[in-house]
Amino acid sequence: MGYSESDVIAILAEVFEKGDPRVIVGIGDDAALVRGSAHQILTTDIAVEGVHFRREWSTPYEIGRRIAAANIADVLSMNGKCDYLLVAATLTGKEDLDWIRALAQGIADEAAMAGAVVVGGDLVRSPIFTLAITAVGHSEKVIERKGAAIGDGIYLSSLTGWSTAGLEILSGKHEITSPNAHKALAEYRAPTLDLTTDFSQASSMCDVSDSLMTQGRQMASASGVRFEINFNLIKASDEFADLSHLAQEVGGNLHNWILQGGEDHVLMATGIELPGLCIGRVVEGEGLIVIENGREIEMAPVAWSHFS
Amino acid sequence: MGYSESDVIAILAEVFEKGDPRVIVGIGDDAALVRGSAHQILTTDIAVEGVHFRREWSTPYEIGRRIAAANIADVLSMNGKCDYLLVAATLTGKEDLDWIRALAQGIADEAAMAGAVVVGGDLVRSPIFTLAITAVGHSEKVIERKGAAIGDGIYLSSLTGWSTAGLEILSGKHEITSPNAHKALAEYRAPTLDLTTDFSQASSMCDVSDSLMTQGRQMASASGVRFEINFNLIKASDEFADLSHLAQEVGGNLHNWILQGGEDHVLMATGIELPGLCIGRVVEGEGLIVIENGREIEMAPVAWSHFS
Repeated sequence: MGYSESDVIAILAEVFEKGDPRVIVGIGDDAALVRGSAHQILTTDIAVEGVHFRREWSTPYEIGRRIAAANIADVLSMNGKCDYLLVAATLTGKEDLDWIRALAQGIADEAAMAGAVVVGGDLVRSPIFTLAITAVGHSEKVIERKGAAIGDGIYLSSLTGWSTAGLEILSGKHEITSPNAHKALAEYRAPTLDLTTDFSQASSMCDVSDSLMTQGRQMASASGVRFEINFNLIKASDEFADLSHLAQEVGGNLHNWILQGGEDHVLMATGIELPGLCIGRVVEGEGLIVIENGREIEMAPVAWSHFS
Repeated sequence: MGYSESDVIAILAEVFEKGDPRVIVGIGDDAALVRGSAHQILTTDIAVEGVHFRREWSTPYEIGRRIAAANIADVLSMNGKCDYLLVAATLTGKEDLDWIRALAQGIADEAAMAGAVVVGGDLVRSPIFTLAITAVGHSEKVIERKGAAIGDGIYLSSLTGWSTAGLEILSGKHEITSPNAHKALAEYRAPTLDLTTDFSQASSMCDVSDSLMTQGRQMASASGVRFEINFNLIKASDEFADLSHLAQEVGGNLHNWILQGGEDHVLMATGIELPGLCIGRVVEGEGLIVIENGREIEMAPVAWSHFS
């Protein structure tokens, strides 16, 4: 393949070494030594080519950003700040040095946007390209999935559905050139993490990685309450109008996109008078229901899972 | 495959949930929340079926122990204690629930031996079984690869070569039943980590994962010195006699096993009057040389790498 492991390590050191004061021993020793916190948040995700991403649909830079974002989102969803990433990759040998550099740069840039730095990793050979990222963060006040209280509102940091819309555009044969289509494609390729919406007063919080309905049910179950999503509240949002135009353009199902689409990595939180988009309320009972025009609507079962 | 993601998660929660007081939020939320330290050690490793292990040579329990051990060893090699593991796996669908439980139990048991606990993970589908583990530890006094001083002795926590001897037995057609062969097979399948040798006064330290010569060269380079390995010192050790008998039994090359064999995960340290096995000294110059009977001996280039 025309390059050695040390060529790759030299590139990674160049892309990842930021001279960050939190990093005491960085890439190159058996392990990294970093400044830690009393309350440390730890999370890991592994993504596989053909299952979680496709090289023909995403550049290596976008793949790097996307998988890093998925990890960082899990730290944000605990009301945490992400400090460090560790990156383990299996490469097939098809990747040239420019490709590897772009992948690393995507990870480094997504980390930098969240105030984090890559401090270590591992690189091995495999027939399939796989990327496992671990995020390490901290929080003085962790917010869990449990804690939603009856009477709370349910809020999103922004509207879900864009990533799935992007996936449908890529999967289909549409010639889509509208700004909304570009936004959907961009969100699929590298979701925009919400680093500004202040959910620090939320009673419970979660990262919407699988779908609004899946994570809503998980939060309801963890909290011992029912989540009542009011689709009319969603319809009233500015973002809905944009997504609605796109659905008409590509013939998509808005309810599926918004309620059952995955990979948006927006934050869902419960509480009183939170910022963001209010989409429903926490009531007595269990599970999650969706109301539209005063009636409960039925959704087809969610089939989407990286495990099936 | 006859089971769902939630079946697997229930098993993992059962195997990994230890009620450890260091764990504030464990498996089941977006991320784990744990008690951290001012000086945090972070390391990650990814292992691929067919490259790093084979199902026909190792039980799932041994695979779990082995990959966990490789990670924990990186924390020990910084003079750290391992606190937490995160485990990300790609499963092919061939694995039944007993197989998954055995893999998890291997990881949990290896973690417990080192005083660590598994706090999170991720599980996805892939055509190839891959296991990525991240270890998080702490140390009040980190020892790096650099720091070896001229005049220091070079020490091993125990003799290298056993894992490669085990691999050769498995690769060959030998009918080997001696206690030494059993030890070699066991070390290949799940290396014994040294949790007792006190290298806290070492000037530099490393985990011998690739080979004594590879890691010795890395330490010498990081420290700006030469490592002079004296094979006669190695020969004088009790363990050498055992490994020597095994080499006769299977027709193995002792020099290759000890100097160029990988995956033993013993610790190599430099310093004055350290415990363990003294195998040489730090001298002026660069690189690593091996002396036997007063003369430098030539070793064939090390071809062993998980990346090539």
